[in-house]
Amino acid sequence: MSGFRHRHVLGLEGWSRDDVLQVLDRAERFHALNEGVVKKSPSLRGRTVINMFLEPSTRTRTSFELAAKRLGADAINFTPSQSSTVKGETLLDTARNLQAMHPDVIVLRHSASGAAASIARHVEAAIINAGDGTHEHPSQGLLDCATIRRHKRPGARDLAGLTVAICGDLAHSRVARSDVHGLGILGAKVRCAAPRTMIPVGFEALGCEVFDRVEPAVEGADVVIMLRIQKERAQGPSLYPNNREYSRYFGLGPRLLELLADDAIVMHPGPVNRGLELDPRIADGPRSVILDQVTWGVAVRMALLELLAGDGSVAAP
Amino acid sequence: MSGFRHRHVLGLEGWSRDDVLQVLDRAERFHALNEGVVKKSPSLRGRTVINMFLEPSTRTRTSFELAAKRLGADAINFTPSQSSTVKGETLLDTARNLQAMHPDVIVLRHSASGAAASIARHVEAAIINAGDGTHEHPSQGLLDCATIRRHKRPGARDLAGLTVAICGDLAHSRVARSDVHGLGILGAKVRCAAPRTMIPVGFEALGCEVFDRVEPAVEGADVVIMLRIQKERAQGPSLYPNNREYSRYFGLGPRLLELLADDAIVMHPGPVNRGLELDPRIADGPRSVILDQVTWGVAVRMALLELLAGDGSVAAP
Amino acid sequence: MSGFRHRHVLGLEGWSRDDVLQVLDRAERFHALNEGVVKKSPSLRGRTVINMFLEPSTRTRTSFELAAKRLGADAINFTPSQSSTVKGETLLDTARNLQAMHPDVIVLRHSASGAAASIARHVEAAIINAGDGTHEHPSQGLLDCATIRRHKRPGARDLAGLTVAICGDLAHSRVARSDVHGLGILGAKVRCAAPRTMIPVGFEALGCEVFDRVEPAVEGADVVIMLRIQKERAQGPSLYPNNREYSRYFGLGPRLLELLADDAIVMHPGPVNRGLELDPRIADGPRSVILDQVTWGVAVRMALLELLAGDGSVAAP
Repeated sequence: MSGFRHRHVLGLEGWSRDDVLQVLDRAERFHALNEGVVKKSPSLRGRTVINMFLEPSTRTRTSFELAAKRLGADAINFTPSQSSTVKGETLLDTARNLQAMHPDVIVLRHSASGAAASIARHVEAAIINAGDGTHEHPSQGLLDCATIRRHKRPGARDLAGLTVAICGDLAHSRVARSDVHGLGILGAKVRCAAPRTMIPVGFEALGCEVFDRVEPAVEGADVVIMLRIQKERAQGPSLYPNNREYSRYFGLGPRLLELLADDAIVMHPGPVNRGLELDPRIADGPRSVILDQVTWGVAVRMALLELLAGDGSVAAP
Repeated sequence: MSGFRHRHVLGLEGWSRDDVLQVLDRAERFHALNEGVVKKSPSLRGRTVINMFLEPSTRTRTSFELAAKRLGADAINFTPSQSSTVKGETLLDTARNLQAMHPDVIVLRHSASGAAASIARHVEAAIINAGDGTHEHPSQGLLDCATIRRHKRPGARDLAGLTVAICGDLAHSRVARSDVHGLGILGAKVRCAAPRTMIPVGFEALGCEVFDRVEPAVEGADVVIMLRIQKERAQGPSLYPNNREYSRYFGLGPRLLELLADDAIVMHPGPVNRGLELDPRIADGPRSVILDQVTWGVAVRMALLELLAGDGSVAAP
Repeated sequence: MSGFRHRHVLGLEGWSRDDVLQVLDRAERFHALNEGVVKKSPSLRGRTVINMFLEPSTRTRTSFELAAKRLGADAINFTPSQSSTVKGETLLDTARNLQAMHPDVIVLRHSASGAAASIARHVEAAIINAGDGTHEHPSQGLLDCATIRRHKRPGARDLAGLTVAICGDLAHSRVARSDVHGLGILGAKVRCAAPRTMIPVGFEALGCEVFDRVEPAVEGADVVIMLRIQKERAQGPSLYPNNREYSRYFGLGPRLLELLADDAIVMHPGPVNRGLELDPRIADGPRSVILDQVTWGVAVRMALLELLAGDGSVAAP
């Protein structure tokens, strides 16, 4: 019995401490498994996982595909080419069609906020939101928590006492939203910083301090998460003057690094715009745990898939 | 010993009643399997299935891929990008190259009628035609038969005594051709209806009544199959005045629904052009078995793959 | 214990006779396995193979994917869409990200010569070069050796005493370079022929005779390997007057065939430009072993994957 109380993973908002810890604890085991030679734990044998990515994302899709395969599931990539799933109605049609093939889990990435929740109401498969518009990207939030716990609280269960700074385009970042929820649930203190044009109204209500300068956010922080400037998402009039200005005031370089705690770690959801939001020397430096995040990504996704579709899951008889 | 007498599945034309029933009976078992938790019957372990889709079709490809994987086969998607397989000669070259990798089954979709038969003459692998031009789409015909049998003749073996209406673009529909063959073989009475511009000369010779109005075709019918308007296939001067006219005279709406038998079911090969050939309320209504068709699709394809490449198949030693 | 001394397969330059024979001998076993019904030898169960193809190549990718799956590995196709991996720096970033998912083998195709070697310095996974610019394509060189050994030296270990002619665009052919290395290592005498514009300076230093006419190269040869004219690679001012001229002087037709040894075989890495570098009658004729090359391709790649990542490999504990 997994005892996991969620049928879907749509977002971390509203999750309990136990929910998050259940994922993280299970991910620890998969993290160890993945360091061995035989990276296989076929608890999803005979289950079907469909990756339905309607926004291009080779990295996250690969992470989920690998997670499903290492669990022994039959993994299918469903990536419609053209316009066939542009409209909301058609997305639902597509999801219902896939449901008719009896998948156990559908992993969905979509450009519209709320797309995953919308589909979850109409299908029997467990839905994992792999990023919906500017809303949430819960597996990223969880993998960030897992990475931080391993590095800053080895042996502990939660993140109480830690200060985490999240810097960048808060308005367009589903990563930021899932991070704020996840970190808050585990007891960390979260500070966010962005240019004023990139701070959504009421963002502090998510449970974080918000600054329009980086310095007060990162000062003494144990962890700093630099967000990616999503050029493709920042439509309309530019939200910042130019790359040089952004890099100067909101990019993480040697000067800001000085303000962090001595043993602080630097994170980024990837791929990094080197020299824009993050100095390449820091991205590749000793404080960076960016690649560890990728490693934890596979482990956390294995944990989610197993909790949703393994023996004893909500979905199982 | 499967005793299946076909080495390939190129079309239902010329199939015997036993051939069709063999597929349907086996599909019943896979249909049940697919409703369970462990959807795995690894009778094709060590066999190789190559999906070679030279026309875009995410749904059918996904159905075949899932069928192959649930049977334990090694499934490969071979989807050449550019122009490399446009010409007939190159198609054969490509098929011969794939054959050299010793696949057991090649599932082929191609824009040219006869493409599957042409390749079948030159390779050792079993060929499943997943749609060739305007010719046939036999697995669709079989899944339609399976869906109808389950809903209208539960417990019976064939479809004797049933009346099935097929409405839409008969000229460009490989689905219609495979349906007419399959339904006729199982003893159903088939009526077809289309605008005159969409009725091929001599279509009734396939074994069906043909009407240029919908009403006489659907009157008292037990099943109605609405064909998809294939905008991409209806090249040249339009075959019908405009969408509104088509919908009014050949789309299935509440008015025509009245003419059907009381317990009639509504089918469509998908994806539905809602509001064009089918009223959305009917597509999602209690008479619709459209999603059941998708479910039977996986089961029928598992049956075909196993009959062609499983132990006791023609191909096995 | 495999005792294979290479951690990566970047090129055949510098390989020893034992290295090549180890691959070929193991490939013989997989060649036999692949002719049976159950084409499965799950020695890579629990291992992860990532196919990272940054140049389009459906055939070679399919060959590697099939090889990985028949060995029981979890095989992932990583094919970034747009410009995300155009720059060298980003390629390394991408490779590091994939490495963080703990693959055992990364199979890389890239347009830049040296790309595979460059990545091999920065990741822990075994790298197989599946073609890097105009440098090498070692699995092609090995499969050519395997094909020649089977046809011309059955029962023998190496290719001593054979004369092999390689004809075509030496300047842009990574196949030619790997072939010259592999054949030379196994003791064959190698002659190369190309128009002067297609002969790189110092090519004979690889260990072959070089001619600017075909006749002296093929005269009495036991094997002729016709290279593919890579229209997409021959950028800038054309390297030959026109197709007709090329075909006339450097294409293999009936006239040149007469010059070969009586039992000579004809090879080509595929896909063949029929009528350009190779007469269609010869490509499909009794001397052609082109499709055998494809068959050996899968077997050789299974051998490479198992040597690099199977039990007893360098990578295993």
